[in-house]
Amino acid sequence: MSAAEAEESYSYLGPPGTFTWAALQQVERARGKRWRSVNNVGEALDDVVTGRSTAAMIAIENSVDGGVSATQDALASIPNLRIVGEYLVPVRFVLVALPGTRLEDVHVVAAHPVAYAQCHGWLERALPEHAHVPATSNVAAADDLTGEHVLADAAIAPPGITEGRDVVVLADDIGDNPHAVTRFVLVSRAARVPEPTGADKTSIIAELPTDEPGSLLEMLEQFATRGVNMSLIESRPIGDELGRYRFVIDLDGHVRDERVADALLGLKRYSPSVIFLGSYPRADRRSIEVTTRYSDTAFREAREWLESIVDGDAREP
Amino acid sequence: MSAAEAEESYSYLGPPGTFTWAALQQVERARGKRWRSVNNVGEALDDVVTGRSTAAMIAIENSVDGGVSATQDALASIPNLRIVGEYLVPVRFVLVALPGTRLEDVHVVAAHPVAYAQCHGWLERALPEHAHVPATSNVAAADDLTGEHVLADAAIAPPGITEGRDVVVLADDIGDNPHAVTRFVLVSRAARVPEPTGADKTSIIAELPTDEPGSLLEMLEQFATRGVNMSLIESRPIGDELGRYRFVIDLDGHVRDERVADALLGLKRYSPSVIFLGSYPRADRRSIEVTTRYSDTAFREAREWLESIVDGDAREP
Amino acid sequence: MSAAEAEESYSYLGPPGTFTWAALQQVERARGKRWRSVNNVGEALDDVVTGRSTAAMIAIENSVDGGVSATQDALASIPNLRIVGEYLVPVRFVLVALPGTRLEDVHVVAAHPVAYAQCHGWLERALPEHAHVPATSNVAAADDLTGEHVLADAAIAPPGITEGRDVVVLADDIGDNPHAVTRFVLVSRAARVPEPTGADKTSIIAELPTDEPGSLLEMLEQFATRGVNMSLIESRPIGDELGRYRFVIDLDGHVRDERVADALLGLKRYSPSVIFLGSYPRADRRSIEVTTRYSDTAFREAREWLESIVDGDAREP
Amino acid sequence: MSAAEAEESYSYLGPPGTFTWAALQQVERARGKRWRSVNNVGEALDDVVTGRSTAAMIAIENSVDGGVSATQDALASIPNLRIVGEYLVPVRFVLVALPGTRLEDVHVVAAHPVAYAQCHGWLERALPEHAHVPATSNVAAADDLTGEHVLADAAIAPPGITEGRDVVVLADDIGDNPHAVTRFVLVSRAARVPEPTGADKTSIIAELPTDEPGSLLEMLEQFATRGVNMSLIESRPIGDELGRYRFVIDLDGHVRDERVADALLGLKRYSPSVIFLGSYPRADRRSIEVTTRYSDTAFREAREWLESIVDGDAREP
Repeated sequence: MSAAEAEESYSYLGPPGTFTWAALQQVERARGKRWRSVNNVGEALDDVVTGRSTAAMIAIENSVDGGVSATQDALASIPNLRIVGEYLVPVRFVLVALPGTRLEDVHVVAAHPVAYAQCHGWLERALPEHAHVPATSNVAAADDLTGEHVLADAAIAPPGITEGRDVVVLADDIGDNPHAVTRFVLVSRAARVPEPTGADKTSIIAELPTDEPGSLLEMLEQFATRGVNMSLIESRPIGDELGRYRFVIDLDGHVRDERVADALLGLKRYSPSVIFLGSYPRADRRSIEVTTRYSDTAFREAREWLESIVDGDAREP
Repeated sequence: MSAAEAEESYSYLGPPGTFTWAALQQVERARGKRWRSVNNVGEALDDVVTGRSTAAMIAIENSVDGGVSATQDALASIPNLRIVGEYLVPVRFVLVALPGTRLEDVHVVAAHPVAYAQCHGWLERALPEHAHVPATSNVAAADDLTGEHVLADAAIAPPGITEGRDVVVLADDIGDNPHAVTRFVLVSRAARVPEPTGADKTSIIAELPTDEPGSLLEMLEQFATRGVNMSLIESRPIGDELGRYRFVIDLDGHVRDERVADALLGLKRYSPSVIFLGSYPRADRRSIEVTTRYSDTAFREAREWLESIVDGDAREP
Repeated sequence: MSAAEAEESYSYLGPPGTFTWAALQQVERARGKRWRSVNNVGEALDDVVTGRSTAAMIAIENSVDGGVSATQDALASIPNLRIVGEYLVPVRFVLVALPGTRLEDVHVVAAHPVAYAQCHGWLERALPEHAHVPATSNVAAADDLTGEHVLADAAIAPPGITEGRDVVVLADDIGDNPHAVTRFVLVSRAARVPEPTGADKTSIIAELPTDEPGSLLEMLEQFATRGVNMSLIESRPIGDELGRYRFVIDLDGHVRDERVADALLGLKRYSPSVIFLGSYPRADRRSIEVTTRYSDTAFREAREWLESIVDGDAREP
Repeated sequence: MSAAEAEESYSYLGPPGTFTWAALQQVERARGKRWRSVNNVGEALDDVVTGRSTAAMIAIENSVDGGVSATQDALASIPNLRIVGEYLVPVRFVLVALPGTRLEDVHVVAAHPVAYAQCHGWLERALPEHAHVPATSNVAAADDLTGEHVLADAAIAPPGITEGRDVVVLADDIGDNPHAVTRFVLVSRAARVPEPTGADKTSIIAELPTDEPGSLLEMLEQFATRGVNMSLIESRPIGDELGRYRFVIDLDGHVRDERVADALLGLKRYSPSVIFLGSYPRADRRSIEVTTRYSDTAFREAREWLESIVDGDAREP
């Protein structure tokens, strides 16, 4: 056991200072363990599949850009993975440069394309004449300010970037949307589903059986008729041809909640392919309210009633 | 046991010769047992409840007039009854009279109101000037031709009426609808539900929770989302005020069929009152065809998949 | 005009004193006009079709017994009729007899079968040994106490029966359900639909296209997706074979209400046969509340938006 | 007129050789007109809004990556735009380098991130040790092979790149998905919707009124109850907070088709915000098949029936 614990490690899109790194900071059980910085979602999940890492932290949705396609597609295609936790990180950006640089000296800005897009408004106003050099990550953008080939005069990066780097903040909070937040999930190998906490989320990916009118509707009815709310639904192309989709869906509730289990049974019978990604505590810890009709008690009482019927003990209370 | 068997008896709306009597003739296990002729549905069911009779044969639906209200309401209010069999009797009527009577002698016709209504067209054409004397049953109508007070010159009755009675048929097949048929059910005390035969029907009575728009729709979705067909739906006033209804529903399939059981669970959770009236072989012995999606196998496989998920053994084959 | 008015006449199930007569008393425009007492619904509607009467008052639903089959079937089969008004009559029964009769003298009770059924509880308690003589109407029951052939010692009849007849009340309010009420409709030939009053009802009869699972559901969705509430739904056998039904439906609202009109359009496209029976003021004068989404304004604004789209004037306010 | 025609111009994500350029090649009316090469979707649409261009060609969906977020969000936020045509371009990639370069000489690969992701499998196999330099477009990637600062040894680019450039193809068809295709739309200012061709598509963007369970379901029912198929549904965050979405939807059919118009009316009444993006011929020219129930004739006949009802001319044929 202690050997295993000693080996516990966590993969994340590095280097330290990225938003993913900030998300992993929130995971209590990851503290003091080994963290593996990787270059993309594929590497992170590969670490989990091969056992190099206990779990991987990956971005799954952004309040501005929507679902992270690479993550959704990886979760749809790599078997035996499970989401075990959810974490929110506010998206804040700063413009950094080498000490001594003034804003009016900035002509070329290094930025990851997503970060660049999210600061577009500020850049238009403050640096209307700038050129953009794309970077592979927010931290790599800062690295473009130093090293052998200096590519840019300034970089867009997360606030933590100044730690351990010789850069200064030229402008703070330059993101266009002050409420922007990124949702991360911690992914491990499939294991027994954890107990419900009363504030859980369940993630699945499902395909439609046909593309007839109403087939999506019929799939969604599996949730609606059991009072199960969807907090997310995203379509993703299956990839073989235009017009064929799978759906990435987040449900309020836990697979051990009767209504969620019943909805998944209905979904499984309907869809040619359902992938269960996990039931896990919500990042916001907000309890799910369920009307009496969809409570565990209602499900249990209905089952007891049905059993009494079939055995002929009773008909109606 | 032999004592109990000796005591086996069956109640029916008599006397011998009625359509109900014809229905009871179809019940193999009732042959050679004691038959109790009663005056109405209430008496017949009372015989069952008190144990005076093993079972009662009662009319529940007519292809011309629809559901028999008295039967439906009795089944909704008397607890611990079960439908155990279904029987169809063609509705044929003859006009009978004492020997020597000619059609042109007929001025007053005795008839049960329902029979009278079903021969209305023929009467209009053949006896446009006749008067009607209502009778309490089709057989009682024939009795009005004889006895102390002769009330009528002719009577509308079932074809079997001539057996053991000194009456002759003046006109055959006088019903307006040649395809008319009455559906009877055999009702006993609640007991273990019989095994499915593959050609079964399930009868229930359910109330709506509210009278909001869409509440009936939501109830029916419980069946539709499980591929369960309704062969009958009738609304009956609950009786406390106008606008409040319960629904008498026949479903294709047996409560031991997974899709029917699942639909009843959904219905039970939705409706404030569900009465299970029984699962029993269909009179027409027509097998119920079920698409793969709603087969017992589909339900079983979905359950196994869900169990494997929760235990973390697998995610997706 | 005055000639036409002079000829105005109203048919009803007579004689004076019946519940139908009580309903017709409520019709202001019928006062002082000629009233034709008829024997059944068929005669009443025939008077309207042939022009013998301006309108006919007929019972359509009873809070205890449900829909009146004969009325529903007549409205489904006779073309060019319209419901123009709705009236409620409380169902109260008294036991009457010739003066001098005491309750303990009563052995034979004359009663219309429906009235008899609705007083069943009281009869069981007060006259457990009585015999029943069926009568063709509530008033005819009272007539059985007098005349050439006296058939009964007492009769079940409406409270008004004592007017102009030499009978006395032996027992008052003997109905089993003190809240029982019968709903009557006034029927005339098809004409321009009257203006909405804000408290209207619309009656239709529709057939299902097939008997597949979900076909009733799909029909009801036509109402639910437009926020149109059903205050009544009754299935009636079409009559050609068991298992084929038409549905008698009352909707809250008027055909000139946008949401009702739109629902009828959807219904007409779906159903192989839709019969419009009329839009008319509700007996209870209760206003229909409609959420903003289903208001006439919402329909009108959506139409204006669509027109602006097609013409390219605007895209979005 | 000839002056206006002389000024006609078309914006596209350039330079010549990009997939967008290939899409614009398919537009007959753009031949011989002025083409404006721009840097991103925002610029292209801005050209249309300001009148600098007649129309802009922009990528909207990729069979591998799904919807193009930037395009969807721009169409959702910029008013008075209309999609007037749809074009498909197969996604094929080649690896190019300066003449004389051998595959084994390639260490650094320039590629737009999307192109890079779509050739990931081939790169893993053929160049397992390569480094990646991101480029702002597929054509810019090729430019990184020449000029002042040479950043890469090879570039991923579309097949047309070799025209007019001193580069050679090192490897052909290196995309991971041989069936990959990108869908482009031609966007102009809002104008009168073109006539239906029988093979049309309608694009809209709509918000949900609430996030209650079933609210998406209710929105989709607007299409399903009118037999309108969705060929695309994508959720996009509205951007103000996590969990709030708008939906980008493509419908089979034209806004002048009765069933589509009726569905849009229903949608408009339901949704707090509906953006109509246009009805335009499908790229694949495949005719939309419509069952009788949802045909223009069915809609017209239902309307005629309703009018006759209200006027009282008829009830039922």
